[in-house]
Amino acid sequence: MKKKNKKVNAGILIIGNEILSGRTQDKNIAFISNWLNSKCGISVNEVRIVPDLEKTITKNLIEMSKKFNYVFTTGGIGPTHDDITAQSISKAFKVKYEYHKEAFQILEKYYGKSKFNDGRRKMAKMPKGSKLIYNPSSAAPGFIIKNVISLPGVPSILNSMIENCKQYLIKGLKVHSKTLNLFTVESNISRQLGTIQKKYKRFVNIGSYPFFRLGKIGVSIVSRSTSKIKLQCVNRDLIKLVKFKKIKILKI
Amino acid sequence: MKKKNKKVNAGILIIGNEILSGRTQDKNIAFISNWLNSKCGISVNEVRIVPDLEKTITKNLIEMSKKFNYVFTTGGIGPTHDDITAQSISKAFKVKYEYHKEAFQILEKYYGKSKFNDGRRKMAKMPKGSKLIYNPSSAAPGFIIKNVISLPGVPSILNSMIENCKQYLIKGLKVHSKTLNLFTVESNISRQLGTIQKKYKRFVNIGSYPFFRLGKIGVSIVSRSTSKIKLQCVNRDLIKLVKFKKIKILKI
Repeated sequence: MKKKNKKVNAGILIIGNEILSGRTQDKNIAFISNWLNSKCGISVNEVRIVPDLEKTITKNLIEMSKKFNYVFTTGGIGPTHDDITAQSISKAFKVKYEYHKEAFQILEKYYGKSKFNDGRRKMAKMPKGSKLIYNPSSAAPGFIIKNVISLPGVPSILNSMIENCKQYLIKGLKVHSKTLNLFTVESNISRQLGTIQKKYKRFVNIGSYPFFRLGKIGVSIVSRSTSKIKLQCVNRDLIKLVKFKKIKILKI
Repeated sequence: MKKKNKKVNAGILIIGNEILSGRTQDKNIAFISNWLNSKCGISVNEVRIVPDLEKTITKNLIEMSKKFNYVFTTGGIGPTHDDITAQSISKAFKVKYEYHKEAFQILEKYYGKSKFNDGRRKMAKMPKGSKLIYNPSSAAPGFIIKNVISLPGVPSILNSMIENCKQYLIKGLKVHSKTLNLFTVESNISRQLGTIQKKYKRFVNIGSYPFFRLGKIGVSIVSRSTSKIKLQCVNRDLIKLVKFKKIKILKI
């Protein structure tokens, strides 16, 4: 993994009718995002969830691959008719959709020659020029072409593959974060919080998120920055505010 | 709620750095989507998740409000500096961002005059011409302007408000669904499934989703259609396939 001393970003394109219909609760966004940030210093700047429609996938993919350093897609690389991610990516990049030699061998070996039917063969078809993302759970590999990384939708399989993406990514500056959990309501501190955010607006992003715990209402103040020093400065200002307002901190 | 005998669609725009960073697992997409489909016959066609940046929110909002019958936004309507949804929607629609008289009264009454500070007042500011979506949990209302409905990000509060959106929506044709849970693998039935999908492609959408239960691998076949009759036809064909392949059905 090469290192780059600047911000690197990514977009995520979730492909699947089952997420849009509400049948399936997505778990991949938070997982990929956390992994990219903590392991690679890459921030996710946008997520889109789209149906299994070739034109829609292609259009969004072209837009996102121009906009972000990397695009991660999830879903639609299985053996059935509704798995159209690989062919849609081929169309988006105007390259052939064809058997990947190594993927074919991996799958043929995994299933055995006699059971290597059409559906299973389909999983070896990829955009020409793809490199493989190996799959230790169920053999069928993901792939990377240009700046697009294509992973399956089943969370347990995706999770097992994610480390194999690392070799293809350029490492960015890590975003550090610090959280203060306060037993107060947002509107009690919103003005002062705004002032602190203004003071550090070039370096730190401060978010405020209500929570409910042990029957009490609270607010998590989350500061995020690539600079640990600036993060400490914000924290000092926040602690001053907390003391001034006599707010109890929840320690966890 | 007026009724319309055709397909009605929606987009969802999730606003919040905390979802993009992976800190918070979104729960609103599946909830809104299920509710829209089951209660209003409205299908969600696209979801986008964007950060708390005015320009980004505005741009996506303009695009989505042109593309879909309705756009639901979640998040960013609280009292703090990072809550910029209402002002961003005002910019998108080129209308004033100002106090909504009734919202102001509701909040003033809820907090009491002496405790109605700047942060709390901010929650009464909305795009000019907005109508209120009442909030039975924590008073601060959501709003609707043109075809955009703005709701808070905290799931429990959003859930309590969703029924109050109904009066503003035109009801579409309900999408019915039927699920068959089979103890088999996708690639065992992918070819035949493709044939069935082709046969009914104008009327029914068939999805195939692997599952793991009781230590066994299975596939859920989900058929979705506005026509119950066509759904029954697909189901008949699927049952034939299941019997022919001697596949066990998981009854739940």
